[in-house]
Amino acid sequence: MNFLEEKILTDGVIKEGNILKVDSFLNHQIDIDIMRQMAYEFKRRFRGVEVNKILTIEASGIAIATLLGDLYDVPVVFAKKSETANSTDDKYISKAYSFTHKKMNNVFISKPYLNAEDKVLIVDDFLADGEAAHSLIDLVKQAGGRIAGIGIAIEKGQQKGGATLRSEGYQVESIAIIDSMDWETQTISFRPQAQKEISKTNLKSTHGINL
Amino acid sequence: MNFLEEKILTDGVIKEGNILKVDSFLNHQIDIDIMRQMAYEFKRRFRGVEVNKILTIEASGIAIATLLGDLYDVPVVFAKKSETANSTDDKYISKAYSFTHKKMNNVFISKPYLNAEDKVLIVDDFLADGEAAHSLIDLVKQAGGRIAGIGIAIEKGQQKGGATLRSEGYQVESIAIIDSMDWETQTISFRPQAQKEISKTNLKSTHGINL
Repeated sequence: MNFLEEKILTDGVIKEGNILKVDSFLNHQIDIDIMRQMAYEFKRRFRGVEVNKILTIEASGIAIATLLGDLYDVPVVFAKKSETANSTDDKYISKAYSFTHKKMNNVFISKPYLNAEDKVLIVDDFLADGEAAHSLIDLVKQAGGRIAGIGIAIEKGQQKGGATLRSEGYQVESIAIIDSMDWETQTISFRPQAQKEISKTNLKSTHGINL
Repeated sequence: MNFLEEKILTDGVIKEGNILKVDSFLNHQIDIDIMRQMAYEFKRRFRGVEVNKILTIEASGIAIATLLGDLYDVPVVFAKKSETANSTDDKYISKAYSFTHKKMNNVFISKPYLNAEDKVLIVDDFLADGEAAHSLIDLVKQAGGRIAGIGIAIEKGQQKGGATLRSEGYQVESIAIIDSMDWETQTISFRPQAQKEISKTNLKSTHGINL
């Protein structure tokens, strides 16, 4: 069990209707140690992948995106959400359905902040049906940029987002993948994740040092 | 001129109607170097002040709050905004008028994340009339906590927020205070800020070392 799975079991609360509340450490109160460890874990999992921008969507992705931007020393951009479509002339705009708020949102980024040279690591706190992730991918593609990968704190493995994105060829790294959870017994089971071993050869080629 | 004033002059854009756009580095795209430097500057200005929680309001305060939480190694809480008032039983709720969105918002924090032992450093990207800051203060007071101070990136010095908060006795530290700006000539003048000298005596007593 990794640090985030352990934290979810300790401090997460399962609510009726397949809802996992993690607002004591992830998306209302922020546990800085957990956030920092997530940033390091994403950097490890995306080792060797070129990244020059971190992208997320307001509001709860911003904390992890900021610490990851700090670690990579690259700019962070957060897409904004709005019910109303403003003038489109200087923005890339996509749409995403919010299950939390049960409405369709416009998701947008001002054009100067995404461009064709960008190698974008997308990060977010949750992945369920992949609505937000797909709208972020759409925005990067509109700008002609490239998706370096998708880093997720908690993936709801029974919903289609993760499977769809992986079948589309994206490297999706979710620190915790929930395979099932049960409100009545308050139990969660996580999908086992293969530990990626970093071989000495890889380390050597990445860092150019002898071991 | 400090680093943020310089950045505002270089990359900020003055729009008609007393609007300063800083979304290339502060509240849409995030310049990590500037954010990190702000965090260090707040820590310097609030030296000697006890802080065990960082509080901000979604969404654009989250990045600076996260880096400050990282520096202090304390939890970060971001208050949420909503037009509709949900059940009040487990939340502290206040109200704030948003000039950006021209509407009254409910601002709330779940009760477990604020309490009477909290010494709260409030941070935000902008201070204008002080609506958001006062609603955050209200939430902390409802919980019985204490305000350690208020750290602001950019204060609009011609609006009443800063003066009101200081007259109420709060330590307000704004890294850049705009005294006037002119759309037609694209000029900004900043309020001179006394450099706070940290005397050797203070350093000695803070760090317990001889200099």
